[in-house]
Amino acid sequence: MSIAEAGEFGLIARVVARLTIGRTTLLGPGDDSAIVAAPDGRIVASTDVLVEGRHFRRDWSSGTDVGHRAAAANLADIAAMGAVPTALLVGLCAPTDLDIGWAENLADGLSAEAALVGASVVGGDTSASPTLTVAVTALGDLGGLKPVLRSGAQPGDLIALAGRVGYAAAGYTVLSRGFRTPKALVEAYRRPQVPYEAGPAAARAGATSMIDVSDGLLQDLGHLAKASVVGLDVRSDAFKVTGQMLDAATALGVDPMQWLLAGGDDHALAATFPAGTELPPGWSEIGMVHEGTGVTVDHKLWSGPLGWDHFR
Amino acid sequence: MSIAEAGEFGLIARVVARLTIGRTTLLGPGDDSAIVAAPDGRIVASTDVLVEGRHFRRDWSSGTDVGHRAAAANLADIAAMGAVPTALLVGLCAPTDLDIGWAENLADGLSAEAALVGASVVGGDTSASPTLTVAVTALGDLGGLKPVLRSGAQPGDLIALAGRVGYAAAGYTVLSRGFRTPKALVEAYRRPQVPYEAGPAAARAGATSMIDVSDGLLQDLGHLAKASVVGLDVRSDAFKVTGQMLDAATALGVDPMQWLLAGGDDHALAATFPAGTELPPGWSEIGMVHEGTGVTVDHKLWSGPLGWDHFR
Repeated sequence: MSIAEAGEFGLIARVVARLTIGRTTLLGPGDDSAIVAAPDGRIVASTDVLVEGRHFRRDWSSGTDVGHRAAAANLADIAAMGAVPTALLVGLCAPTDLDIGWAENLADGLSAEAALVGASVVGGDTSASPTLTVAVTALGDLGGLKPVLRSGAQPGDLIALAGRVGYAAAGYTVLSRGFRTPKALVEAYRRPQVPYEAGPAAARAGATSMIDVSDGLLQDLGHLAKASVVGLDVRSDAFKVTGQMLDAATALGVDPMQWLLAGGDDHALAATFPAGTELPPGWSEIGMVHEGTGVTVDHKLWSGPLGWDHFR
Repeated sequence: MSIAEAGEFGLIARVVARLTIGRTTLLGPGDDSAIVAAPDGRIVASTDVLVEGRHFRRDWSSGTDVGHRAAAANLADIAAMGAVPTALLVGLCAPTDLDIGWAENLADGLSAEAALVGASVVGGDTSASPTLTVAVTALGDLGGLKPVLRSGAQPGDLIALAGRVGYAAAGYTVLSRGFRTPKALVEAYRRPQVPYEAGPAAARAGATSMIDVSDGLLQDLGHLAKASVVGLDVRSDAFKVTGQMLDAATALGVDPMQWLLAGGDDHALAATFPAGTELPPGWSEIGMVHEGTGVTVDHKLWSGPLGWDHFR
């Protein structure tokens, strides 16, 4: 059945029936607005849009995959402030001939990814559109912690990373060359494994700055360097090229460091900490903050592309 | 200059520079997430998508108009809970050849409409897309009030309306027939005049239920009747057909009651109050709640279309 046959209210009823509602949801879907607990007295909020053909392809990813990825992209932005996600709101624009099963699977993926951190899909909107588009807003709670901004890095701080980099970019390259394996890389592209807990853990450990790595490590570190008015140097030997990634890179003729340093979509977290900080679980040191500007790798400028521009 | 020439980060910088940031914004655009004051400890949240060709046309509305309308649609959903809006987040999906001036005007409209209620645009995201799409999420604060849901209407309650109905629908009909006047109707379609303050005022006055009239009065009252498990009867003599609306209806061969009872997009608020309630300023009685189901006009079923389905 297409979503046009189901009708706007039929689609909403079918999708809402699949959502699991968690304890931070005071009023879920069905009224003019949702109501979400905000015990901290401040709300952290971020929004991301995913457009078919640009952020996902239906022949590469299932509806459930797209749901996981759309939720992850937003939830990671909440974690990158040091906050715990509480809620998602979802706008779905879809061609009228979209199978309702795809929309239901999207809801499953969004709801399941949110449930990983105790958050819920609390509301949304739908419209017909020629272009399949998923717009997600995430909300989160700071639990009394000071938010970790991009602007607090200090010369002498160490740079640390939580989560994986390069996997989603490798999976993207594999898929774009027409392959479906190695499965670990393809799955990393379809459903990122985000280190959500590492965000609040970094805030508690005294992180001076933090950012979600969504466009590519060097590009995102560049935003952090600019906001903090510092220079950042990354050590290339801090990154391990795993066997599967090395095999795929060799087979596809790609420098795997390009995936690691400039690949987006894994939603790792990068942060800076005062030198000597005992890093929380999941974090490992990858470089140092110094006076200056920009980002270097082993004290040299990186010659390859830095990351992703969504208009280019 | 097109948005592709400006680049993703160029566009964001130009748009952010135009926003006015209000006092509920603790951290505005530029980091992974925004931070908004939520003094009540609960956050009210709603999302709406606007798609070119379905919700707006660039030859009918300027970028500023679309910004006002997109903000109004969302802010009205916050007001309909009895809350005061605090923040907007905006996802813009746009063809790469979109003139950057249109995006700047959109930001102007969003920011100006939000400023009417003391709210601000605090964050957003952009992507290239073949279909121009504006996805807006609004946040709001209940200020200690009990939220007014759709489900609380009781038999014997009176039904009241704040704000205008039929004006936007009349303006839409005028534009769709190729006319540009009467200006009052066309402007009502381009920029709705939403009675934002009437939402919290209704909550303080003891409203038992409330809804934003976005799809058409009878259709939206139908949602309220269903959620409250009551019947609603509306008095047709509670509605005044103004001179300009009557002239346009006569010229276009339309029954003006169709605009009033089934036209959406003015974002009036409809609510129910216990009989004998002294209605707050801006509210006027339009009917009664009774035991039963559904919505009638002068105790009869309405023969015309009830409202709008975004997939039909």
